[in-house]
Order: sequence, then structure tokens, then C-alpha cells
Amino acid sequence: MARSPSGESVLTRVVRILDAFGPEAPVLTVGEISRRAVLPQATAARLVKEMTRHGLLTRDQQRRVRIGTRMWELAERASPMQVLREAALQYMGDLQAVVGHSTQLGVLDAGEVLFVERLTAPESVVNLTRIGGRLPLHASSAGLVLLTHAPAEVQEQIIQGPLPALTPRTIVDERALRAELAEVRRRGFAFCPGHIHPDATGIAVPVRQNGRVVAALGLIVPNDGAAWSLHRHLQLTGLALSRALSAVPGSARPKGD
Amino acid sequence: MARSPSGESVLTRVVRILDAFGPEAPVLTVGEISRRAVLPQATAARLVKEMTRHGLLTRDQQRRVRIGTRMWELAERASPMQVLREAALQYMGDLQAVVGHSTQLGVLDAGEVLFVERLTAPESVVNLTRIGGRLPLHASSAGLVLLTHAPAEVQEQIIQGPLPALTPRTIVDERALRAELAEVRRRGFAFCPGHIHPDATGIAVPVRQNGRVVAALGLIVPNDGAAWSLHRHLQLTGLALSRALSAVPGSARPKGD
Repeated sequence: MARSPSGESVLTRVVRILDAFGPEAPVLTVGEISRRAVLPQATAARLVKEMTRHGLLTRDQQRRVRIGTRMWELAERASPMQVLREAALQYMGDLQAVVGHSTQLGVLDAGEVLFVERLTAPESVVNLTRIGGRLPLHASSAGLVLLTHAPAEVQEQIIQGPLPALTPRTIVDERALRAELAEVRRRGFAFCPGHIHPDATGIAVPVRQNGRVVAALGLIVPNDGAAWSLHRHLQLTGLALSRALSAVPGSARPKGD
Repeated sequence: MARSPSGESVLTRVVRILDAFGPEAPVLTVGEISRRAVLPQATAARLVKEMTRHGLLTRDQQRRVRIGTRMWELAERASPMQVLREAALQYMGDLQAVVGHSTQLGVLDAGEVLFVERLTAPESVVNLTRIGGRLPLHASSAGLVLLTHAPAEVQEQIIQGPLPALTPRTIVDERALRAELAEVRRRGFAFCPGHIHPDATGIAVPVRQNGRVVAALGLIVPNDGAAWSLHRHLQLTGLALSRALSAVPGSARPKGD
């Protein structure tokens, strides 16, 4: 790869520019991109121009920059998660129609839950996740399910912390986390009242493809006495989705392993 | 941008490599990438290696290559279509629950319909679209809606052809297409029995944000006598989604214009 005087490749800089955008910053000026990506303004301007020419970025009438449709298309149309997400959406819609709460689908990526699909119910309780957003494995119900079924080395790395608290209910202790993972495995779902937000309970079940856990399906419900009873609905949906995925020819695996 | 001896920039080559993947080719060897992207094998191997290091690509145990989760995340989390897609999914779910057919959402991109969301009904008629897939504007119901509301120069360019036939029912004549666009504008929806596939009828309505058409919402139903009556359900859903989008602060616009 061609390198700049600082020894950084063009691709590294392109990825840094893409990484400057986020849910809280979907539109940026070149100056903001240069600051957030830690690149000289002239370099940022030159790269933004070429990335825009390829449709990876797009500019609005005020010359502000956002992620381009072409970038989305290149990522999406051959996405290893597309089969998983499209199958899951059907079952998530069924679940939402029956129980009336928000549902979401997360995969294990780089030691966190990456949420790849979400359906928000009209009268939904607070839900801090978003598509393309992440949560720590130890704090969220989807994360606990994924951690329970993660390779041993990923488990150990997470369990040994740090385990930051998002609320007073978040599991922050190594022994408590080990006990919780054993419990999730035993009962087949994770139940997290107030672990992420005091008003919400997360419930999550594993989604399997041919026996292997490829995702966690979650339900976000009010943190009240009725929450516990909903785990059976979620379990049924998780099993139905796992069956559907295991019948799909080819790969719906979220990762290339 | 740094350039290769052939004068091509690194970014051009990176985009060509990403473009080598598609719904029909989600997994490729380096040899296949080199062929499809028209790059020397050593160049392809070097770029694939660096793209993999950044997570834009990922390799499986057989060293075959696919699009990486990181690429999807970078494209998705700040996607200008995310607000549109997430709002639309709710209404698409409602529509599917009530009418029981597949629904899809398309935006105008580079003279084609780009489908950005799809919900497939369990007992669905044949549906040739897919998320991240494209169809010609003149042939599909979503395309006719988007073409009706496209800028005049886009309209003229498409109308003047070529207008390839996908079935004997596809509109392939300039005068017929102009008449159809006037009709779509007058009645508020597009109705395409057998235009894409003999067994399917596409129906589509505009989705507006603050008055501007930002997408087309479509229904794919069997090509039979019952199809026509479904346009009212779709129109109600399109209007409801347009209302919801126009109430959303900030932008749900699919393009950066």
C-alpha cells in the first residue's frame, strides 16, 4: 500500500475518516472530519473528495459530508449477516406483534455485542440500543447470551474485566459474572432487570445455526413484575428462528470463521 | 491519493475489490477477486490483506474472503437511510401482518431503484428483489413511483431508453412510459401486473418526508384478480409512514441532497 510521509497507508486514513462518523455524528464538515480522524485538513479534504467521487461519502447543499449510499450498498449486498438478519426480521415481527415490545438481534464482534437489527414497538420502554450500535458483553442480556457461548479465551478476557457499571444492577464482579453465565447456560436465557437502564429489563436467548450460536435475540420490556413471564415467548421465537436458519442452504453466519 | 504505475489510486482499487462481491458472490478466493476486480493477483492479495487487517474483509478457515462486519458497521451506523429504514420497518411489519404479502422499500440511486429494506411473508409469491439489490426504474412498481417524482433530467434520461423488457408485460415504449407516469401521479400509486415476473404483481406508493418523495413502498402479491384491491391498504401505510417521517426531527433522507 502507498504510504504517507507519516508511514500511514491510504486505507488506514480512509477507515479513520469513515470511523469519524457515527449515530451521534451522521453529518460532518471537512474540518470536523479532519479533527475527529486526526488528519491534516488538506489531507482530509483530498481524501473526502476522492471518497465522494466513489460514492463512499456524499455532500449536501451546505457541503457537509455524510456516509454515501454506495458505501452502504457495497457493505450490505454481500453482507455475511444478510441471511441472518432477513430471517430474523420475520420472527422479530411476529414476536413484536404478539408481545408488543421492542426486539433486537445482536452478534459477537470484537468483544462486544454488535446490534444488527432492531424493531421498535410503538409503546416501547426506553431502549438504548440501535442498529450498528454496541454494548458491553457483561452488561446486556444479549451480551450475556453471546458470552455464555463464546470461545473460552474471549470469555476469560471479558470476565477478567474491567466490568464497568451502567446502573447499580449491572454485574461488575468476576464471581457473580461466572455464576450468571452458568445460570444462562442452565436455563437457556439471560434475564437482566435494570442492568442497562433502571426502567428496562432485557431478556435474551441464543440463536443457533446447525447447533452453533450465531446471534442473540433480545426483548426489551418494562422493569416490572410482568417481565419474567415473557421469557417463554422469546424462547419459542428463538427456537423457531434457529430452526429456520438451520434449514437455509449456504451461510447465514455473522462472522467469517 | 497515491497512485499505482497504471495511474489508478489505491481507493479506486479498494472500491473495485469491494465491488467484486455481490449477492451471487458473497465468498471469493483471492484469485476470483483478482479476476473480477481486474487487478494483478499480487496487488489483489496485498490489498485483501490490508483490508482484512482493517476488518473491511474477513477470511474463513479455507482462506476464502468475504465482506467484514466492520465494513458493515462503518456503513450502517451513520447511514443516511437508517432513520428512514427503521421507521419504515415498523409500518412494513404492520402491513405484512394485515395483508400477508411481502413488502419492500426502495430509494432512487444512480438511475435505478435500490432496495433498502424487505420483509418477506411466509407464503409469499415470487419476489426477485433483495436488500441491497437493484431494479430498473421503468420495469418495477417502486421504480415507476420514484421515476414519477424524479428530477426532470433523470426522467428524460430514463424515458429515452433503452427500456429492456423483463417480461412481455414490461413497459418498453417511450409513449407508454410517459402515459404511465402521468397515471401514477394522478392515481397516487403504481400497479404492475407481471412487469417483473409473470406470476407477481407489484404495487407501490410514494413515501414523503415534509412533502418530498424520499422512497417508494411496495407490495408484491400474486398476479390475480385480488391484486388491485390491495392498493388502498398500501396507500394507507404509505401515508402513515410519511406522517411519521415528517414528524421525525433531523434527516431521514436517503440521499445527501
